[in-house]
Amino acid sequence: MYMALKRVKAVLEYDGTGYCGFQRQASGVPTIQSEVELALYKLTSCNIQIFASGRTDTGVHAIGQVIHFDIESKFSTDEIIGALNHFLQNKFISVLKLSEVSNNFNARFDALERTYIYKIICRNAPLVLEVNRAWHIKYTLDIEKMREASFVFLGRHNFNSFRSSECQSSSPIRTINNIEIIQENNVISIIISAKSFLHNQVRIMVGALKEIGGGKWMKQDILNALAAEDRKEGPVTAPPCGLYFWKVRYGEEYG
Amino acid sequence: MYMALKRVKAVLEYDGTGYCGFQRQASGVPTIQSEVELALYKLTSCNIQIFASGRTDTGVHAIGQVIHFDIESKFSTDEIIGALNHFLQNKFISVLKLSEVSNNFNARFDALERTYIYKIICRNAPLVLEVNRAWHIKYTLDIEKMREASFVFLGRHNFNSFRSSECQSSSPIRTINNIEIIQENNVISIIISAKSFLHNQVRIMVGALKEIGGGKWMKQDILNALAAEDRKEGPVTAPPCGLYFWKVRYGEEYG
Repeated sequence: MYMALKRVKAVLEYDGTGYCGFQRQASGVPTIQSEVELALYKLTSCNIQIFASGRTDTGVHAIGQVIHFDIESKFSTDEIIGALNHFLQNKFISVLKLSEVSNNFNARFDALERTYIYKIICRNAPLVLEVNRAWHIKYTLDIEKMREASFVFLGRHNFNSFRSSECQSSSPIRTINNIEIIQENNVISIIISAKSFLHNQVRIMVGALKEIGGGKWMKQDILNALAAEDRKEGPVTAPPCGLYFWKVRYGEEYG
Repeated sequence: MYMALKRVKAVLEYDGTGYCGFQRQASGVPTIQSEVELALYKLTSCNIQIFASGRTDTGVHAIGQVIHFDIESKFSTDEIIGALNHFLQNKFISVLKLSEVSNNFNARFDALERTYIYKIICRNAPLVLEVNRAWHIKYTLDIEKMREASFVFLGRHNFNSFRSSECQSSSPIRTINNIEIIQENNVISIIISAKSFLHNQVRIMVGALKEIGGGKWMKQDILNALAAEDRKEGPVTAPPCGLYFWKVRYGEEYG
């Protein structure tokens, strides 16, 4: 039987704490993808695969992850978003927006820019309201030094020292479009934009900025690490709980 | 045996979601007070009672609840805060600050002003990152109307229509020092300060402002409700999850 299909783009918020990342895994551990696909199955009785603009790791959150999938045309967008949010109740995943897009839209390949936020809280006391939602640093960071050093990352660089040793990208070259560091009381937010990122790149860049802020690294250490093109010369990887996949920019034709 | 005691003032943050409010209850249900007193017992092997600047209800959070208690002088403030935060691990309670104060300091009776924040998020999709941390309203609120109407509450009023029918205060008269309404994207924060509040007063005031923002009430309805001096003429009580006990102001002698 022929089924008329339409392509749908959706924006997801999720709390990554209890999930083994975005991507479905053969072992059957809970992932964002497996939960959303299960919800789609409950709606349609079909196995529908979803495609994300970018994978997130275990414990990483999303404020605006973008996915696409194909679904029978008979389901209206209102029906789909309503059903998904119903079936995703208590799963810490929410569909913020959903719209029909042209059949050639691809959440991953059409992304023009991805933006992440990394949140650090500097205080001595354990985190409560922000536990699992920020990197808890027990000393203060010098935000001016962090800001000045962050400019080193702007533009096109070989980020081999700033990617996971398991990164599968063929090229270590990436271009950072923007870095902004905002402080509000003892909360520091680092906002980083690029067309795409290497595996763990944001978290390793944040690891470097934290060493700058804590006085253990100078700006020159970032330059040295970049020049070394060797993960062993790079800084520690910041923990996943502070990282939020914020937004993805697409061409105007894809809203 | 005579034990030298000192009085200590402490500032607490807590996530009220899993607790039956601040106050210890005979039934033994989990409360903030019982957890903190248990932690003090683990440190001192003494039953120490803590006294709060104000009780919070089931599900209400605190960013800066203030308590006082008496403890053997041999424990340094560093020891006490370290031990409390150790024993309160995974209890969603954190001691932010702790200092020795004069023996006549009373967290409740010396408070000059208490400030609460109430957080509302207006969006259609279920809350995820802010679930149990804000009132989820599925439509937009007119913040300008809310702001204009909020001024009605300023000053001294009979808040009989704006307190729980179980409120035990002998007088329904309270004075609102300040109300501020802040909007950031779809997050509305209502900040209210007074020397003291009646039971559920902030949540009922927020209930009224929500009806104003949603167009169901006009400013006159608040005036009418105040004039009625009857809880039945007041608005709904906003849910506890959006409420945060933010801070308490004391005289300079008590820091």
